[in-house]
Amino acid sequence: MKKLLVVYALLIIAFLLYLKDFQTREATANLNETKGLQGQVDEKYVMVTFQAGTDYWKKILKGFEDAGQALNVSVEYHGAAQYDVKEQITVLEQVIARKPSGIALSAIHPDALDVTIFKAIDAGIPIVLFDSDAPKSNAYTFIGTNNVNAGATAAHELAHFINRKGKVAVVTIPNQQNQINRLKGFQETIEKQYPEIEIVAIEDGRGDQIVSEQVVKDILTNYPDLKGIFITEANGGVGAGRAVLQLKKDKDVKIVSFDTDKQTLDMIKEGTIEATLAQGTWSMGYWALNYLFHLHHGLIRLPSDPYAHNKLPTLDTGITVVTKKNVDSYYAE
Amino acid sequence: MKKLLVVYALLIIAFLLYLKDFQTREATANLNETKGLQGQVDEKYVMVTFQAGTDYWKKILKGFEDAGQALNVSVEYHGAAQYDVKEQITVLEQVIARKPSGIALSAIHPDALDVTIFKAIDAGIPIVLFDSDAPKSNAYTFIGTNNVNAGATAAHELAHFINRKGKVAVVTIPNQQNQINRLKGFQETIEKQYPEIEIVAIEDGRGDQIVSEQVVKDILTNYPDLKGIFITEANGGVGAGRAVLQLKKDKDVKIVSFDTDKQTLDMIKEGTIEATLAQGTWSMGYWALNYLFHLHHGLIRLPSDPYAHNKLPTLDTGITVVTKKNVDSYYAE
Repeated sequence: MKKLLVVYALLIIAFLLYLKDFQTREATANLNETKGLQGQVDEKYVMVTFQAGTDYWKKILKGFEDAGQALNVSVEYHGAAQYDVKEQITVLEQVIARKPSGIALSAIHPDALDVTIFKAIDAGIPIVLFDSDAPKSNAYTFIGTNNVNAGATAAHELAHFINRKGKVAVVTIPNQQNQINRLKGFQETIEKQYPEIEIVAIEDGRGDQIVSEQVVKDILTNYPDLKGIFITEANGGVGAGRAVLQLKKDKDVKIVSFDTDKQTLDMIKEGTIEATLAQGTWSMGYWALNYLFHLHHGLIRLPSDPYAHNKLPTLDTGITVVTKKNVDSYYAE
Repeated sequence: MKKLLVVYALLIIAFLLYLKDFQTREATANLNETKGLQGQVDEKYVMVTFQAGTDYWKKILKGFEDAGQALNVSVEYHGAAQYDVKEQITVLEQVIARKPSGIALSAIHPDALDVTIFKAIDAGIPIVLFDSDAPKSNAYTFIGTNNVNAGATAAHELAHFINRKGKVAVVTIPNQQNQINRLKGFQETIEKQYPEIEIVAIEDGRGDQIVSEQVVKDILTNYPDLKGIFITEANGGVGAGRAVLQLKKDKDVKIVSFDTDKQTLDMIKEGTIEATLAQGTWSMGYWALNYLFHLHHGLIRLPSDPYAHNKLPTLDTGITVVTKKNVDSYYAE
């Protein structure tokens, strides 16, 4: 009887020790949990654009989602359906009302969204801009292509294809910061470095394939000796390609376009478009979410100077030139 | 006796259930551990500079350390003691030999370290550059001040202080990429935008207070009507400040310097230096480690085009102008 009691007592002590060991191990595990960069269950980050549904945003969203997965947080995408300033403001206000942990925003207009951005930041919701900037807003930073440099690269490429002389035209969108900067870089470079090239027309293609096609047809009618066209965004490039094909001018007129959607890549492959500029789209989404995560968790040291502009480093996601030579590697992306 | 056995049996069952609960909870904890961004125990990242021991690197190292803590990895600092190309190559080679998880490097020379950088990357050790670039190397990116822009800002500031006219001089270091770019931005801006300002001397201060002091004294002897000096780095600024004080020219000659070490801030407070340019030093270190961590863990999508330059986005950590008005907020940093 006494022996049995001793055995039971030993068993109980053994279990208590085992339990203690487990508790210690669990405490260690909990400690590890607090280390590293990892979000809470209720953390949600939202990406907001205009003109939803284009392939271009999907590549950026993939980077945004990949970062969300790495940091164990939720992500959402909301876009205005149309190319419309008021609609994007409405979408942004609806997103702010739901108090997300952070917003990555591509601005349709350089200053029309500034007040709404201010409201969000005032309410403690960090905003970073990507792809198209609102340079006077108090958003924390801009992540995207250095579009002035991209415009300059487009100028060098087009100059190369037309042997550095002749009339050229630009089709762009007048009120969007990234397009404005691409045009600026293109114009400055042509004027300074290519005295025998003349920019004879700068027209609004409204970011639309059909509008751009008509615009390019009109330019080609007015300037039958036109040698080249720079289109500052992808839809315009496809429209321009169709225009030169219909007018049977695809051999005479060289086109430099922007971005790498499938239609553009196809036109490069068949020789209608000479070159397009690929942006670091995945990087834009990936680092936008990283920045927002750091801001939400207060991990970043902000400048002590309250008047400092762009409180976080701006990120230049770079460009690469896509031609027939390397076009195949861009289909997979 | 039987009752006692039942009690013991129940106790043991209760313990087993308790234990089971603990095991489940521990398993959950382990699962959470694998989420989020967190390093392994053996991960070590190294920051490598030249001219170790200056306050300037300490601010960058703080950002590097803070990121290391956030990601739960170890960090180390190694610097060449002298301002010497060969010594930095030796230090870098020693660091590579110990196979760290990644290296953040500030290059003393624009191309002298390219071969060593190539060796590291070839051996699977990612390198990112910060503060001073090696633009032709195959390092993954550059994180730092856009120094051409910084030089342009310095030109606007100096022009403002000397009422847009008169003779000015520059004291710089000729073979370091960040200094070269600062000089370039300064020269271009003065030449284009300030026709009544003449740059009469560009001298080498070797990044040394005593050398720079003598250089500035010599310039002031040769050009007694000099109105302003731009010094492209902090030690030179302090040397220039001492030179104008000794020659009792501190009221006549306006100085624009670089960085925010204590001696420079003191000279701004007492009016010897008019303005200095503050860099985003903490950000350089913080994001350098973040990039290295992402590279080491294969979390970043790299361009499919193998010829793409700067495979990761470049980070412009920005500058802010420090004058008497806001100098106090920079002492705390």
